[in-house]
Amino acid sequence: MLIVMEKTATPEQIDQVVKVIEGLGCMARPIPGGDRVSIGVLNNKGPVDPALFLGLPGVKEAVPITKPYKLVSRETKAEDTLIRVGEITIGSGYLTIIAGPCAIESDGQAMTIAEHVKKAGAHLFRGGAFKPRTSPYSFQGLGEAGLKILAKVRENTGLPVVTEVMDFQTFDLVEHYADVVQIGTRNMQNFSLLKRAGESYRPILLKRGMAATIDEWLMAAEYIMAQGNHQVILCERGVRTFVHHSRNTLDLSAVPVVKKESHLPIVVDPSHAAGRRDQVLPLSRAAVAANAHGLMVEVHHQPEKALSDGAQSLYPEQFDLLCQQVMAIFNVCGREDSL
Amino acid sequence: MLIVMEKTATPEQIDQVVKVIEGLGCMARPIPGGDRVSIGVLNNKGPVDPALFLGLPGVKEAVPITKPYKLVSRETKAEDTLIRVGEITIGSGYLTIIAGPCAIESDGQAMTIAEHVKKAGAHLFRGGAFKPRTSPYSFQGLGEAGLKILAKVRENTGLPVVTEVMDFQTFDLVEHYADVVQIGTRNMQNFSLLKRAGESYRPILLKRGMAATIDEWLMAAEYIMAQGNHQVILCERGVRTFVHHSRNTLDLSAVPVVKKESHLPIVVDPSHAAGRRDQVLPLSRAAVAANAHGLMVEVHHQPEKALSDGAQSLYPEQFDLLCQQVMAIFNVCGREDSL
Amino acid sequence: MLIVMEKTATPEQIDQVVKVIEGLGCMARPIPGGDRVSIGVLNNKGPVDPALFLGLPGVKEAVPITKPYKLVSRETKAEDTLIRVGEITIGSGYLTIIAGPCAIESDGQAMTIAEHVKKAGAHLFRGGAFKPRTSPYSFQGLGEAGLKILAKVRENTGLPVVTEVMDFQTFDLVEHYADVVQIGTRNMQNFSLLKRAGESYRPILLKRGMAATIDEWLMAAEYIMAQGNHQVILCERGVRTFVHHSRNTLDLSAVPVVKKESHLPIVVDPSHAAGRRDQVLPLSRAAVAANAHGLMVEVHHQPEKALSDGAQSLYPEQFDLLCQQVMAIFNVCGREDSL
Amino acid sequence: MLIVMEKTATPEQIDQVVKVIEGLGCMARPIPGGDRVSIGVLNNKGPVDPALFLGLPGVKEAVPITKPYKLVSRETKAEDTLIRVGEITIGSGYLTIIAGPCAIESDGQAMTIAEHVKKAGAHLFRGGAFKPRTSPYSFQGLGEAGLKILAKVRENTGLPVVTEVMDFQTFDLVEHYADVVQIGTRNMQNFSLLKRAGESYRPILLKRGMAATIDEWLMAAEYIMAQGNHQVILCERGVRTFVHHSRNTLDLSAVPVVKKESHLPIVVDPSHAAGRRDQVLPLSRAAVAANAHGLMVEVHHQPEKALSDGAQSLYPEQFDLLCQQVMAIFNVCGREDSL
Repeated sequence: MLIVMEKTATPEQIDQVVKVIEGLGCMARPIPGGDRVSIGVLNNKGPVDPALFLGLPGVKEAVPITKPYKLVSRETKAEDTLIRVGEITIGSGYLTIIAGPCAIESDGQAMTIAEHVKKAGAHLFRGGAFKPRTSPYSFQGLGEAGLKILAKVRENTGLPVVTEVMDFQTFDLVEHYADVVQIGTRNMQNFSLLKRAGESYRPILLKRGMAATIDEWLMAAEYIMAQGNHQVILCERGVRTFVHHSRNTLDLSAVPVVKKESHLPIVVDPSHAAGRRDQVLPLSRAAVAANAHGLMVEVHHQPEKALSDGAQSLYPEQFDLLCQQVMAIFNVCGREDSL
Repeated sequence: MLIVMEKTATPEQIDQVVKVIEGLGCMARPIPGGDRVSIGVLNNKGPVDPALFLGLPGVKEAVPITKPYKLVSRETKAEDTLIRVGEITIGSGYLTIIAGPCAIESDGQAMTIAEHVKKAGAHLFRGGAFKPRTSPYSFQGLGEAGLKILAKVRENTGLPVVTEVMDFQTFDLVEHYADVVQIGTRNMQNFSLLKRAGESYRPILLKRGMAATIDEWLMAAEYIMAQGNHQVILCERGVRTFVHHSRNTLDLSAVPVVKKESHLPIVVDPSHAAGRRDQVLPLSRAAVAANAHGLMVEVHHQPEKALSDGAQSLYPEQFDLLCQQVMAIFNVCGREDSL
Repeated sequence: MLIVMEKTATPEQIDQVVKVIEGLGCMARPIPGGDRVSIGVLNNKGPVDPALFLGLPGVKEAVPITKPYKLVSRETKAEDTLIRVGEITIGSGYLTIIAGPCAIESDGQAMTIAEHVKKAGAHLFRGGAFKPRTSPYSFQGLGEAGLKILAKVRENTGLPVVTEVMDFQTFDLVEHYADVVQIGTRNMQNFSLLKRAGESYRPILLKRGMAATIDEWLMAAEYIMAQGNHQVILCERGVRTFVHHSRNTLDLSAVPVVKKESHLPIVVDPSHAAGRRDQVLPLSRAAVAANAHGLMVEVHHQPEKALSDGAQSLYPEQFDLLCQQVMAIFNVCGREDSL
Repeated sequence: MLIVMEKTATPEQIDQVVKVIEGLGCMARPIPGGDRVSIGVLNNKGPVDPALFLGLPGVKEAVPITKPYKLVSRETKAEDTLIRVGEITIGSGYLTIIAGPCAIESDGQAMTIAEHVKKAGAHLFRGGAFKPRTSPYSFQGLGEAGLKILAKVRENTGLPVVTEVMDFQTFDLVEHYADVVQIGTRNMQNFSLLKRAGESYRPILLKRGMAATIDEWLMAAEYIMAQGNHQVILCERGVRTFVHHSRNTLDLSAVPVVKKESHLPIVVDPSHAAGRRDQVLPLSRAAVAANAHGLMVEVHHQPEKALSDGAQSLYPEQFDLLCQQVMAIFNVCGREDSL
């Protein structure tokens, strides 16, 4: 933290800031400048709250210098984290494709799609049993029946399954059936849920919040890791901006930034970013070209009848093309992971 | 819903759209235009998912016409909802001031602040016992001990208390102690929590999500009302934008829009919008001048020692000035609520 | 500027940064911290480009400390700038109301509206002769004929007039007829136009760009002042965000921030922020309550026939109410300008 | 345009809307729905302003249906526009790489970089002679001397040159020296400049505004085309969002959307999107994988000494790698341009 004083700050005001710093058990180091004084805060154990200084008389700005996260940071653990799910590895050097419908609707629907995506090259199957829906009147998912269908899909196809958990109450259940437990965008800062996820024996796929900075997202992962679960997969899915030609704006800069700041794997969900089928293929290729460690894509054999998110679900043959194209890109430039 | 077809759409493509509409139990009404056909969707009971049409061949756009919410809508209930908390009324014709520290830190801290804000004119006392914090290493609140302090404050001052609930597990507890239960920004779309709030016997203060549209916010209120709890107070607290001279950007247009669309009361939290003490007073005056039904303001007698959000907490004497000024504005133009 | 080094930065990398700083004629002051080194840049005359450091090996961040503007800054000139236009004063202690149609359409239209707004209490008349329109096929304004109508309005009513200039070619003409020359949102960073405005003998009303930070906006004013014209009025008119219930999101925090950073007056345009008539009145009241120095409001006696922006133009009787309400608020809390 | 009436709209209010529509020379077609009436506007020649209806009593919404642009639209011209610059073709089926320094600083600097980027595979050379800078105190470009250096670079290397024009006054000059004239982000809605560009005999590279929707961007291109110059190249360069880990957020969805809506070529500028060197390579690969028709990249042999934008300029050897990787991606999936 660096405290920048007003040009007109008095020695008394500077002293008061020094005292507040020392009161926090830190060291204060005033830095006289050309026309104003700044004060460095040293030896802080964790992050210091800028708020403590911003309101003091004579203080112009409080600039955080060190990042607030620890366990997720590459400064704490330099080597990439690889996450094993059955025989699949997620992380540096791999391209993992997760595919399936938005929601599990029936035995037949799930199996039809699962068989198709497996043949096309997907490594994990996704499908929602508990669905967070904007409207209380929309289809809310099959619940436990959906989880049982997922288990059957896994048994029949060998594909590990990813599914979302929405609350503490159903966490045990979801954890029992899922191979990877997903925490959705709207729950990225549901801290109680993050703490429970931190006690889970399953890897957690943590989606970025709709308006979350990377710092906030990594701090959400920190919540999980701080409870002991170090198996976290980050998932970029677009952020909310003024743009309305896509549902969200896919932020591909997040891929190199997360890779620089953290050792955790990062995958990209182009389906929720786009919200429209015709943008999913170009965004998928772009994500792999940006060296994401994987993709999570929605596929449906009858999207016009899907109970949710039909507009962004690929037709099976589009998914075939996607797999071919992204594997080709990965072979060309993804393996070495050179930024 | 209006389905707009491409200029080049074939009769077969138009037929397919009509069939999908009829498959939903709705009526399709094609409208031949100058150079393209549009198709109206009539007799839909609830909102129809545009996604079902967006991916169909020949479809250019799917434009929702009716709003997705029902119970919150002024079209369902024309007269303003008034919410009673003890002897306080929140809603049209009243200006309710909720004030207190960000977090309850101790008996002494809470009582000192409560006595001050009461004298200055506050109607309810606020203070967090369970605190959602970006970092797992920050102060997380006193928990039940904090709730007990709130109860004592109410007993001593007569002020009803507002406090945040973070999860299902502690809902019973919070509901027991609080007069108004707050659902925070990060939980605005924690649908499990909203459903539990819908079963509560307490009024719910529902903060707007950091990047929520008004539709999404009203749909979150709809979740609560759909479970039977019709006592919902909406709270605008700023949205995330590119702007960084304030923590969030206070969206005061939300006040007239919510009042037009819904019968529910709406209050404004200038403290979290600003994130800096020196913007709280002008934003408070602005919110009341925009005819918000109330304010929720953070006050601390020693903000430089506050365990959270000190930078945005007003000094007690600033809060005195705030109360005087907003009451004067309310007297001048707020009472009649003329838009 | 503070250069924050990586934890792993080598002494050689630190040396290189020091050399770059010294190469700029500045002083480098390394600050050893707990676990990383930071390097202060001192004695810089103007702003230093962070870009020069961001790409150097071992550099983690470059944090600007001092603001890039000079002439607009309150640190350069502490007392408020007051701008005289005829007998009107704009700035601290005054509430100036500028009103009129979006575009000048005809003699009769302009005079009808001007007489009305004068009677209601407006101090200046606004109206566009050269109109920046998103579409080349929309009405582009009457050009010089419009300017002549403005001159006639001034002659008949005594109201000074504000009108927009769009380019260098017509600057002389606009400057000749206008009392205050407006530079619009889309031209806020049209630097050639700003330089020309800097040579004008007229006060300039400079609207904030649709996505401009306050720093960028003040730097645009700095362009004008650097050429010698110190009569700049800033105009907040909403910024573009994800929100779509208003055309833009009015950023009222800008008022206290600009007042703190700069000595220039700041007015608010609620009409372009809202884009809808029914939000103009509450936003106007809010702006005055936030202590803006004035308002610029669109009024039309037949908005449904207006050639541009009819939807946001107030009916004359709505403007009457607006004037009464904002004057009442100004009397209650605006005069002393207490933040 | 579809006018949606309130549920409570009276027959008189509906009649009034019909009259306004007919007053515009259009046909009104009321569509009775389940619980409200909508009114279609047919036979409109150009776009109709929703503003004309939004303020009328009984009107709930006015929904534009047809797009406002004509000449840029794929509905007007189905086949892709190819633009020839010397022996280079820009558009569908080609990957065009434009590279060079942000600003022309000297003969030696320009030639050193130009020779390098030519060898690496660039097709055009870029470099600014007139520089739009946020601060009036920053380096503003060499002006005509810079243009002469560009001409020399072209002569020596055979590379056509792209350079920015900032105003009407210098347009003739820039047009004389440049092979492609660039209009920058901040001038995207400088309509006078667009009109002048529409009279130019040079192809125009039109950058997207920092907060422009695709509609606004295409309308800016429409301004140019409406004056007779049909050679427009669109350039996506990132938009302003709440994200601050990159200078802007690259919006790659714009690529498929523009290709669908328009026949004009679209290239991507990853340097200004990122603002940091270490994101340029992944974003470049991503842009080509999303099937952009080209890239515009900043390269400098001594970025730490660059007079502007050094932090985002690639070192020459990074640009070599970029060319290899994007050509490989283009060969894999770009040639067929399959969305």
